[in-house]
Amino acid sequence: MTSLILSRRDIEFMLYEWLNAESLVALPRYADHSRETFDAVLDLSAEIATEHFASHNKKNDANEPWFDGDVVHMIPEVKAALDIFAEAGLIAAGQDYDLGGMQLPTLVEKACFAWFLAANVGTAAYPFLTIGNANLLLTYGTPEQKQTWVKPMMDGRFFGTMCLSEPQAGSSLADIRTRAEPDNDGRYRVFGNKMWISGGEHSLSENIVHLVLARLPDAPPGVKGISLFIVPRHLIEADGTVGEHNDVVLAGLNHKMGYRGTTNTLLNFGEGKFTPEGKSGAVAYLVGEANKGLSYMFHMMNEARIGVGLGAAALGYTGYLHALEYARERKQGRTPGAKDPSQPAVAIIEHTDVKRMLLAQKAYVEGGLGLNLYCARLIDEERTSQGDDKARATLLLDMLTPVAKSWPSQWCLEANNLAIQVHGGYGYTRDYNVEQFYRDNRLNPIHEGTHGIQALDLLGRKVVMQGGLGLDLLLDLIQATTAQASEVAELAESGAQLDAVVYRLADVTRKLHTCGQPALTMANAAVYLEAFGHTVVAWIWLEQMLAAAGKSGDFYAGKRQAGRWYFAWELPRTEQWLNLLSSLDDTCLTMRDNWF
Amino acid sequence: MTSLILSRRDIEFMLYEWLNAESLVALPRYADHSRETFDAVLDLSAEIATEHFASHNKKNDANEPWFDGDVVHMIPEVKAALDIFAEAGLIAAGQDYDLGGMQLPTLVEKACFAWFLAANVGTAAYPFLTIGNANLLLTYGTPEQKQTWVKPMMDGRFFGTMCLSEPQAGSSLADIRTRAEPDNDGRYRVFGNKMWISGGEHSLSENIVHLVLARLPDAPPGVKGISLFIVPRHLIEADGTVGEHNDVVLAGLNHKMGYRGTTNTLLNFGEGKFTPEGKSGAVAYLVGEANKGLSYMFHMMNEARIGVGLGAAALGYTGYLHALEYARERKQGRTPGAKDPSQPAVAIIEHTDVKRMLLAQKAYVEGGLGLNLYCARLIDEERTSQGDDKARATLLLDMLTPVAKSWPSQWCLEANNLAIQVHGGYGYTRDYNVEQFYRDNRLNPIHEGTHGIQALDLLGRKVVMQGGLGLDLLLDLIQATTAQASEVAELAESGAQLDAVVYRLADVTRKLHTCGQPALTMANAAVYLEAFGHTVVAWIWLEQMLAAAGKSGDFYAGKRQAGRWYFAWELPRTEQWLNLLSSLDDTCLTMRDNWF
Repeated sequence: MTSLILSRRDIEFMLYEWLNAESLVALPRYADHSRETFDAVLDLSAEIATEHFASHNKKNDANEPWFDGDVVHMIPEVKAALDIFAEAGLIAAGQDYDLGGMQLPTLVEKACFAWFLAANVGTAAYPFLTIGNANLLLTYGTPEQKQTWVKPMMDGRFFGTMCLSEPQAGSSLADIRTRAEPDNDGRYRVFGNKMWISGGEHSLSENIVHLVLARLPDAPPGVKGISLFIVPRHLIEADGTVGEHNDVVLAGLNHKMGYRGTTNTLLNFGEGKFTPEGKSGAVAYLVGEANKGLSYMFHMMNEARIGVGLGAAALGYTGYLHALEYARERKQGRTPGAKDPSQPAVAIIEHTDVKRMLLAQKAYVEGGLGLNLYCARLIDEERTSQGDDKARATLLLDMLTPVAKSWPSQWCLEANNLAIQVHGGYGYTRDYNVEQFYRDNRLNPIHEGTHGIQALDLLGRKVVMQGGLGLDLLLDLIQATTAQASEVAELAESGAQLDAVVYRLADVTRKLHTCGQPALTMANAAVYLEAFGHTVVAWIWLEQMLAAAGKSGDFYAGKRQAGRWYFAWELPRTEQWLNLLSSLDDTCLTMRDNWF
Repeated sequence: MTSLILSRRDIEFMLYEWLNAESLVALPRYADHSRETFDAVLDLSAEIATEHFASHNKKNDANEPWFDGDVVHMIPEVKAALDIFAEAGLIAAGQDYDLGGMQLPTLVEKACFAWFLAANVGTAAYPFLTIGNANLLLTYGTPEQKQTWVKPMMDGRFFGTMCLSEPQAGSSLADIRTRAEPDNDGRYRVFGNKMWISGGEHSLSENIVHLVLARLPDAPPGVKGISLFIVPRHLIEADGTVGEHNDVVLAGLNHKMGYRGTTNTLLNFGEGKFTPEGKSGAVAYLVGEANKGLSYMFHMMNEARIGVGLGAAALGYTGYLHALEYARERKQGRTPGAKDPSQPAVAIIEHTDVKRMLLAQKAYVEGGLGLNLYCARLIDEERTSQGDDKARATLLLDMLTPVAKSWPSQWCLEANNLAIQVHGGYGYTRDYNVEQFYRDNRLNPIHEGTHGIQALDLLGRKVVMQGGLGLDLLLDLIQATTAQASEVAELAESGAQLDAVVYRLADVTRKLHTCGQPALTMANAAVYLEAFGHTVVAWIWLEQMLAAAGKSGDFYAGKRQAGRWYFAWELPRTEQWLNLLSSLDDTCLTMRDNWF
C-alpha cells in the first residue's frame, strides 16, 4: 500500500542514489552498518509513524492539551506513541553505543525522523526537542551532567526543552531578563519568565530538562551576558531518582492555530510556589562557562533550524501525497476537446491545472526534503572528518542553515496551500487532513528564528563570514554540479541557466556589501534570502536530476519533469529579486510610520 | 479612535477623491442622495459593524454552529447582529424605494458592506447571500415571486441561499443530478442532494429561500439542461404566513478551517422526512424559462464573485490594520547602527523588514479593495446607463470579474499571512485576531469558482468574447490612465512601465490564441490569470496614485509610497509569467499521472 506520510521510494533515491549513504559504512563510526540496517530502521520508523503517530494526529489537533490549573491533560495516545518511539531506541538512534545509541548516520536518522514529523508533528516535537537538548549537553556538558540528564533522555525517561524567549524578548535575545543567582553549593537559582516553551509542561516523562538562558549578576549587557543553565522540573536525588518539584511553574498554555498537540507554555521560574530545599528560586546548573550561553544554545538552535526545515518539508510532503491520492480518486469534469457531458467525468489529475498544482508541490517538497537531507549528510561529514574537511563541512552547514530552515517553511507551506486547493471545498474542511498540515506548517516561518531573522543572518553574517569563504565554498560546489550537468545532454541547458543565476547572485552579493550605504545593504535582506534560497534549491534539484539522468522508468521520469518544472517556473523568479536587490531599492527603508 | 476594521479615511479617498461618488447624485436614481447621506450610511455601517459584528467574531469562530440532529444551534449574538443590520435597512440599501430600499449607489453600498465583511465574515455571509439571491429574483423572477420571496428578504424576515454544488459535482456543474418533476399545479417537486450550501440551515430567519439548480425530465445533458428553482424551507400560506416544512432536510454541517460562523450544509431535497401537502418532494417554483437556469444563476454568481473579492480584500484590510497597530506597540530590538543593548528597544515598525511586510499588506489590500470598489462603480454605470454605455459597463464587468474575485483571494490572503508574521509567535495564537483572518480568507480562492475556474473563464472566454472587444476595452482604459500618468512628472515612469507590460500582455494573449495548439493555449491559464491580475491591480494603483498626485500630507505620501512599492516589487513579477506563457511551456501539460 502506498503511504500518505512520505515516499519510501523517494527517500531511498535520495539516500542511496544521490547522497551515497552506503559509502558512510566505510567510516569506523558506522562500520557495523549496511544498507540492510539502514533499511531496517527506515522500515521500523515508517511502521511506528503510521501505526502510532499518524493514527492520532487529527485527534490530537481536535483535543489539544488543556491545563486545569494544576495538571496538563492530553489524550493518552501521545504518551503511548512516545513510549513506543523510545523503546524502539529512536531517541538515541544517532548516539554512541555507550549511550545506548545505534550510531546511525545523521543522514539516516533524519530520514527516519522525517516520518514522524510528517505523521504527527505535534507529538514528534517532544523527541525533536529532547534530542536537540541532549546533543547540546553532549557537546558542552560535564560528564556528570551527561550522566544525570542525557542518559535518562536517551532512554525516554526525561524529555528536554529550550527556553530562550521571554514575553518581552523574542527575536531580540539581547533583552532577556531572567536572572540566575549563585547558590552556596556551586549551583544557581533562576528567576524569570520564559515564553513559547514547547514541551514546557506535560506528564509524558518522569522529568523535564529545561535549558534556560539567564543572566548572572554583573553580567555584561546584551548577548555577551547570557549564560546557559540546566533547570529540571524535578530535582534529582543523590541516588538518581526523581525528587521534589523545582521552582518552575506553568503560568499558562498558548493556544495556537496549529501544532496543537505540542504544549506551548509560559513558564515562571522562581516564583516561589515550590521551594526546593526550603527556599524559592529554581535550582539550576551552569552549562560550560558563564556568559557564553548563547553560543552554546546556538548548537541546539542550529540543529533545531535544520529540524524545522525538515519538519516543514515533511508536512509539505504528506500534504502532497494526500493531494495526489485525492486527485487520482476524485472525478470531476472532462478534458478540453472532450466536453460531451454524457461521457463519464475524469479523475481531476487529468486536468492540466491540477497537474500544475501537484508538480509544484512535488518540486517544493522534494526540493525541501533534499536540501535538509543534504544538510544531514554534511553533519555526518562534520562529525566524522578532521581538519580542513571538518572545517569545510562546518562552514557549508553554517551557510546553508538559514536556507534549510526558511525555504521549506515558506515553499512547503505553499505546497500545503496547493494541497488544499487540489481538494477544493473538501480540503477546507476538517474532515480531510490537508487543512491541518497547512495550519501546522504555518508555525515554521516563525519559530527558531523568523524569516526576517534568517535573512539578516544570511546576508549580514553568513555570506561575509571568514571573508566570504563560506559563500565561495557553496558557489564552487554549485558550479561543480553545473559542470557535471554540462556533460549530460538533457541537463546542459539547466546547468547553464543555474550558472548564470549563480554568477548574478555573487555579483549582487558583492554589490550589496560594497555599496557604501550600510542601511541599504541590509534593507532588502528578505528578498536576498528568497533569491538565495531559490538558487540553492535549484542546485539541489540539479543534483537530483543528475542522479536520475539516464535511468528509465516512471520514478525517474517524474524526477526529471519536476526538476524541469522547477527550472522553468521557479528559478526564473530570481531575476526579479536580483534586479530589485541590484537597484538598491529603498522603498521599504524610506517608508515612514506616519505614512501608514 | 482608529478602527482596526477598515480605514474610513481610505474609503473616503476611494469614493470621493478617486471614484467620484458624488457625481452619481446627478443621476435621477440617486437624486435624493448627497455626500452627507453617503457618509451617514458609512457611519452607521462602521458603528454597527464595530459594536455588533466585530464584537462576536472570535466567539463565533470558537463556538461554531452545531447540529443536534434536529436543530442547528449558534451563539445568540449572530441573530442579534443580523436583526440590527436588517432594522437599519442595510439588506435593502441598494434597492428601489418601493421595496423599502435606500436607492444607494452600489459603490457606496459595497463600501458599507465591506465593514461587515471585515468585522465578521461568518455573520456577514447571511445577508451577503440574501442580497445576491434577491437581486437574482428581482432580475428574473415574476412579480408574484418578488412579492412572495424578495420582499420578506428585504425586510430581513427571510434569508437566501444559492444551491449549485452537489457531492459529486463542484466545479463541473454539467454533472449535477438533482431533478425537478412538474407537479400538477404549475409547481415542481425537487429531489437531490446539494453540498457546500452556506446558510443552508439556521433559525436566524422565519424562512430560507433556496435557489436550486436542477434538471427537468428530458432536459438535455450538461449545462444546457439546468433549470433554476425557488425551494423555500417552509411553504408560504395563501395569506403570506409561513406554513409547513418543505421536504428539505439538513443532512449535516461541514466543519471548516475558517468561516466557522456561517453554517455550511449538505441538504437533502425530497428525501421524504417532510411531506408537504401530503407527499414527498420539495415544493419548488421555476424561475424564468426551463433549461436556462445556469445563466440566471450566473447573475447571482457574478455578483457573489465580486463579493468574494471584496470580502477577501476586507479580511486582508483588517489584518493589515491589526498588524500595523501591533507593530507600533510592540518593542523589540534596535535599528542597525544603534545596537547598544542598554538603550531601550524600538517599536518593531522601525525595522525595515517589518515596514516591508506592512507595505506589502497595504499595497495588496488597498489594491484589492480599490479593484472591487471600481467594479461596484461599474455596476452603477451599468444600472443607470443605456445603449452603448450600458454595454460597455457590462463588458468591462465581465472582463474584470475573474480578477476581482481571484486577485484579492490570493494576495489579500498573503496579506493575512504577513499580518501573522508581523505578530511573530503571538500572531500564531488564538489570543490574537490575525490567525482567524488567515483561516477565514483561505476559503476565498475556493468558493464561487476556484482559482483554476477563474483562470479558464478569463483566458478561455473573457478575453475572446465578442472578438476580443472586452479585452480591447480594458486595455484602452488602462492606457488612458497611463497617458494621464505620462503628464505627471512623478508618475510618468510608472505609466511607461505599465504601458510596456500591457503591450506585452496583449501580445502574449494573441500568441496564446493563435498558436494553433489548443491544448497549449489553455494549459497555463492559471499563470495568465496571475499576470493579468497583477497588471490590472497596477492600473488600479496608478489610478489611486493619480488621485493622490500633488496632494500633501501623510495619507497621500503613504499612497504614493505603497504605489511605488507595488510598481517596484510586484509589477515586475509579470515578466516571468509572461515569458513562461510566451514560451508555450508544456511541462504541466505533458506531466503524466504515473510519473508522480
